[in-house]
Amino acid sequence: MLIVMDHRATPDQIQRVVDAIRDMGYGAKPMPGRQRTAIGLVGNDGRVESARLSGLPGVRELIKVSKPYKQVSREWREENTMVDLGNGVALGGSEVAIIAGPCAVESRSQILEIAARVRAAGASALRGGAFKPRTSPYSFQGLGPKGLELLAEARAETGLAVVTEAVEPEGVGLVAEYADVIQIGARNMQNYPLLKRAGRSGRAVLLKRGMSATITEMLLAAEYLLSEGNPNVILCERGVRSFDPQTRNLFDLTAIPVTQSLTHLPVIADPSHGTGVRSKVTPMARAAVAAGADGLIVEVHPDPPTAMSDGAQSLYPGQFEQLVRQCEPILGAIDRSLARVAEAAPAPAGG
Amino acid sequence: MLIVMDHRATPDQIQRVVDAIRDMGYGAKPMPGRQRTAIGLVGNDGRVESARLSGLPGVRELIKVSKPYKQVSREWREENTMVDLGNGVALGGSEVAIIAGPCAVESRSQILEIAARVRAAGASALRGGAFKPRTSPYSFQGLGPKGLELLAEARAETGLAVVTEAVEPEGVGLVAEYADVIQIGARNMQNYPLLKRAGRSGRAVLLKRGMSATITEMLLAAEYLLSEGNPNVILCERGVRSFDPQTRNLFDLTAIPVTQSLTHLPVIADPSHGTGVRSKVTPMARAAVAAGADGLIVEVHPDPPTAMSDGAQSLYPGQFEQLVRQCEPILGAIDRSLARVAEAAPAPAGG
Amino acid sequence: MLIVMDHRATPDQIQRVVDAIRDMGYGAKPMPGRQRTAIGLVGNDGRVESARLSGLPGVRELIKVSKPYKQVSREWREENTMVDLGNGVALGGSEVAIIAGPCAVESRSQILEIAARVRAAGASALRGGAFKPRTSPYSFQGLGPKGLELLAEARAETGLAVVTEAVEPEGVGLVAEYADVIQIGARNMQNYPLLKRAGRSGRAVLLKRGMSATITEMLLAAEYLLSEGNPNVILCERGVRSFDPQTRNLFDLTAIPVTQSLTHLPVIADPSHGTGVRSKVTPMARAAVAAGADGLIVEVHPDPPTAMSDGAQSLYPGQFEQLVRQCEPILGAIDRSLARVAEAAPAPAGG
Amino acid sequence: MLIVMDHRATPDQIQRVVDAIRDMGYGAKPMPGRQRTAIGLVGNDGRVESARLSGLPGVRELIKVSKPYKQVSREWREENTMVDLGNGVALGGSEVAIIAGPCAVESRSQILEIAARVRAAGASALRGGAFKPRTSPYSFQGLGPKGLELLAEARAETGLAVVTEAVEPEGVGLVAEYADVIQIGARNMQNYPLLKRAGRSGRAVLLKRGMSATITEMLLAAEYLLSEGNPNVILCERGVRSFDPQTRNLFDLTAIPVTQSLTHLPVIADPSHGTGVRSKVTPMARAAVAAGADGLIVEVHPDPPTAMSDGAQSLYPGQFEQLVRQCEPILGAIDRSLARVAEAAPAPAGG
Repeated sequence: MLIVMDHRATPDQIQRVVDAIRDMGYGAKPMPGRQRTAIGLVGNDGRVESARLSGLPGVRELIKVSKPYKQVSREWREENTMVDLGNGVALGGSEVAIIAGPCAVESRSQILEIAARVRAAGASALRGGAFKPRTSPYSFQGLGPKGLELLAEARAETGLAVVTEAVEPEGVGLVAEYADVIQIGARNMQNYPLLKRAGRSGRAVLLKRGMSATITEMLLAAEYLLSEGNPNVILCERGVRSFDPQTRNLFDLTAIPVTQSLTHLPVIADPSHGTGVRSKVTPMARAAVAAGADGLIVEVHPDPPTAMSDGAQSLYPGQFEQLVRQCEPILGAIDRSLARVAEAAPAPAGG
Repeated sequence: MLIVMDHRATPDQIQRVVDAIRDMGYGAKPMPGRQRTAIGLVGNDGRVESARLSGLPGVRELIKVSKPYKQVSREWREENTMVDLGNGVALGGSEVAIIAGPCAVESRSQILEIAARVRAAGASALRGGAFKPRTSPYSFQGLGPKGLELLAEARAETGLAVVTEAVEPEGVGLVAEYADVIQIGARNMQNYPLLKRAGRSGRAVLLKRGMSATITEMLLAAEYLLSEGNPNVILCERGVRSFDPQTRNLFDLTAIPVTQSLTHLPVIADPSHGTGVRSKVTPMARAAVAAGADGLIVEVHPDPPTAMSDGAQSLYPGQFEQLVRQCEPILGAIDRSLARVAEAAPAPAGG
Repeated sequence: MLIVMDHRATPDQIQRVVDAIRDMGYGAKPMPGRQRTAIGLVGNDGRVESARLSGLPGVRELIKVSKPYKQVSREWREENTMVDLGNGVALGGSEVAIIAGPCAVESRSQILEIAARVRAAGASALRGGAFKPRTSPYSFQGLGPKGLELLAEARAETGLAVVTEAVEPEGVGLVAEYADVIQIGARNMQNYPLLKRAGRSGRAVLLKRGMSATITEMLLAAEYLLSEGNPNVILCERGVRSFDPQTRNLFDLTAIPVTQSLTHLPVIADPSHGTGVRSKVTPMARAAVAAGADGLIVEVHPDPPTAMSDGAQSLYPGQFEQLVRQCEPILGAIDRSLARVAEAAPAPAGG
Repeated sequence: MLIVMDHRATPDQIQRVVDAIRDMGYGAKPMPGRQRTAIGLVGNDGRVESARLSGLPGVRELIKVSKPYKQVSREWREENTMVDLGNGVALGGSEVAIIAGPCAVESRSQILEIAARVRAAGASALRGGAFKPRTSPYSFQGLGPKGLELLAEARAETGLAVVTEAVEPEGVGLVAEYADVIQIGARNMQNYPLLKRAGRSGRAVLLKRGMSATITEMLLAAEYLLSEGNPNVILCERGVRSFDPQTRNLFDLTAIPVTQSLTHLPVIADPSHGTGVRSKVTPMARAAVAAGADGLIVEVHPDPPTAMSDGAQSLYPGQFEQLVRQCEPILGAIDRSLARVAEAAPAPAGG
């Protein structure tokens, strides 16, 4: 339930509503807005005595939130949430940002080279895994802490924000020291202890849709992040499991406008995992921005055939430049534009 | 197997290759091209004595077709097939055509009104079912022959090509009298007797992907049409079955570039069935053209809430106009353009 | 809607209800039962004046049928429908019948040999396609009418009922001359003209679940058969499409008890297509009868490696004997038993 | 790669092979068998100099393991692994064990009552979550450590083994103190840090198949456990995601014999999650044992309508007794039998 206050409500009146809610045994979450403050009531078990709240001074109206998810819903917050990447670029408005980089950080030269290339081509953030969840225990599992340091060095050189994955609750703190955005991968979308820790990390979170998660389940996973107090969440469509071996996943682009109509959070698309096939990444990146994606996350590697993971779906740097060149006019056609990092790179976030 | 003739090969030499193939117990299919003639060998059981063919005069090379489908493959024919809609508009080149209209023909006024509206907005062809395959035997099953007559009348008035569905082999002849393009619906993608009859109908065929068909199965279904001598086939992605009830189907836009790389046939997209949700049709139409679709097929109804079928996914005419307005600049951004019917409407096909 | 008559209702009273229904513009379908007659009202558009019917003499009560399907539902008819195979064996009671034979009729010796073997092992009916719907136009498409004759010969020799597929409306009449049970394959589950014709054929129909059909859609397809006056319908679970290439299909055995609770029609299982892997057919046949299947349909071939279709999932005759031996004690454990053809084979149906 | 030693090989010869493998930079894993010892070479990158190994004294043969998973494969170990539940009952042989209990531990009286009931009915182990991964952050998340204590109390009273879930790496140690078998839930099947910790816990692990995991992916997840030195792994089929809302999941019983042919680990089935519908649990439990499951895990609650989670799929105690009564004769029919805890309950594991 949402208690919307009058635009002339005083801080005192707001506090009284908060106290009343807590007194009834529920959580209260004040959300100051441009025009007025709303107070979220969390934990509604259907037995809230609404009369007790609607009668308090300064209360304008009570709104029932009908969805299983609350704080992520458009009913709870109508305006888009803008998520800052930490370098002045924000997702959720008319600008569309591109996150690009290798699947995994492999070496200093690899990550610095690719960071410079994707920055020059128009990316706003650098992706790259230091900790890699791999289907087989015998596959390369990432460089670990060393990988995080290399990402920070790449940020310092290029001004790109850093997006990198945390794979366990205990690891969130370390990743948060280096990353601007903590990625939660598809396999971990319903790893609730990890979500809770990321929700308390103080960093923005990029949450990827699970392999066969419904949109409702993805929103409920995001609710774990918001319910820990973290409003800076980016959702990511990356393809779902299907029956046709022609592509690695079935890229569900309709999920973009569907999700955007249900939530105020920005929604981006990952055409690399969505297709799994290098030659299909660029057309599907075009399609994603045409469908209204607020951003893209794309795998690019200096030399895909030698990549330690995801080589088959990684673009060559030149192909990534072409991807950006093809997406820009489409953005123009739908009255949006490509976000770009300001020339003077801001100081890096994570020391 | 494909026997490619030298560009100076004489008709006699070509005939000798055809005779040799037939003599060996296989089918022979000469295909004159711009530069040279190729002869398809159909029914290859892996025991063709290729030496007997490669030695014949005028033979340039033998090409093995490695896919289970033959004549639809790019290996068999490299250049795009252009499929004429019958009114001067062709699919498969740089122009992108829009087929629009109601799910079903419901009345004279309904179909004439909507035909005029979609023609004015930029459609090249009119869709509308006279025979409707319906999940329940108690649902409206279409106006039948009367519906076909109304479609022909709409064509005469607007110059739009007519796309309408045949649902059984015996009905193909009648539909072919009135339609420019015979539609084979998703439920009938593997209705082989129907495909064979449509392959002999003399009309172009619009083949929709089955509910859970792989791309390979769709191409094999198209092969039934080509193997009956009909090269004018349009493939259509319309969403596949999935687990998330948010949308009616899971619109598989990646199937567009994947299919285009495997076949020379044009591939269009149906964002109406692909999403099943009116508000998502336009963003997904934009995405489909950005992904490279050669055309769109869209459900539009003068008054969707009263539609006898598919009301929830049908656009209002004003929304369709907006869809066209939003797709045109995206086409410009990828160096394509919207096909439009020439002002002086050509004589109708089935008059 | 179902109008249930008093058990002392006279034929005259029944007729008056029928007349009243027709007078109101709906269809009426009297169904005499053991205790009392019920009259189905078909075509209910939600505007039936029930008062006009409930007041008629002899009417005991009106029952609303809440499902989209009517005549197939348990609400419409509570007792199991028993479907006779034509040789004294019936499906739908405590006896479980096995239909066995090759995917396709290939030759006289093949079909006569396998018929004798499966009859001896405990089968009640012989399966074998004379018309085969094949994914590729270049695959073996069946022996056609000759295949039907061979099936009839096998029936005459063994007393087995004949189950064989019709693939197009025009072909139903011919198949009905030879078959005891007309099979509608998975690809044709929603081929409505074919269903309508089979519904009028006078033969029992075996309807296989479509590749990705929901149970509701399968029941609606069966409704097409019943609404044409054919109550002798057997439903068949044969696996649905899924993402794991380990098996050809995902065998949905839960569909058996779920379907049985929704409909009065018998439900059988096809472990051959359900798994697609020879070594998994027998364990899954055991599982199917344990789940409550009313019958099995199993592919058996004298020499699977040389089969013209489905060789990889066909059992050797000895394996089929073992399958029967393993299923019988499970039937005993759940108080059912294996149906067996009476020793003196009845006269063939389609002679 | 597997190095199989001669049956007369000395400990010294075995050690020399181990040293040689380590010297080459790979892992060596000696596995003493009944007849002979085999030594697994882990980390094979395709460049192993096999000549160096095959020439060592006592080496009988080298076997290449062709699957992506190694130690879980039947190629690596041919005989079934027997996993002891800690109370004398073992899974993997001819006896079939039943694990039963509520979704979550809710109170002392609830868990003690249900433990006594399922023990009396024939269960060998008690299930019950103390930590619950829930789709919504607002749902009941389990009693935590208090729940573990209650489970231990129930074990002390009944002799049932305790199966309970760990949801994060840091929590494994605590769960291992109380549980005989640590459950890894479907959502965590690919939570690799959790798997690694569970692999080092010293307890048996019950690994549930992920929502849309292929069998290969499940086996690779199990490989994480074995590669940490834990051979006591039980796999569990619990249904996969599908398109038909009639059931909560699509119960993939064919996965049981398929998995058993690929691995030596025991495979059990969860008909509660597999169907999600109370009335379908018993028929599908029958089907699972008929398909060859090595055990069952079933949700039972003293009063399902008041259950704090999974009420709709939980059996009443009387229904569970009936389930056992129906499964026993099926076990008899396939020459297996129900495992039962010895009368004198062994001392609890986690005292």
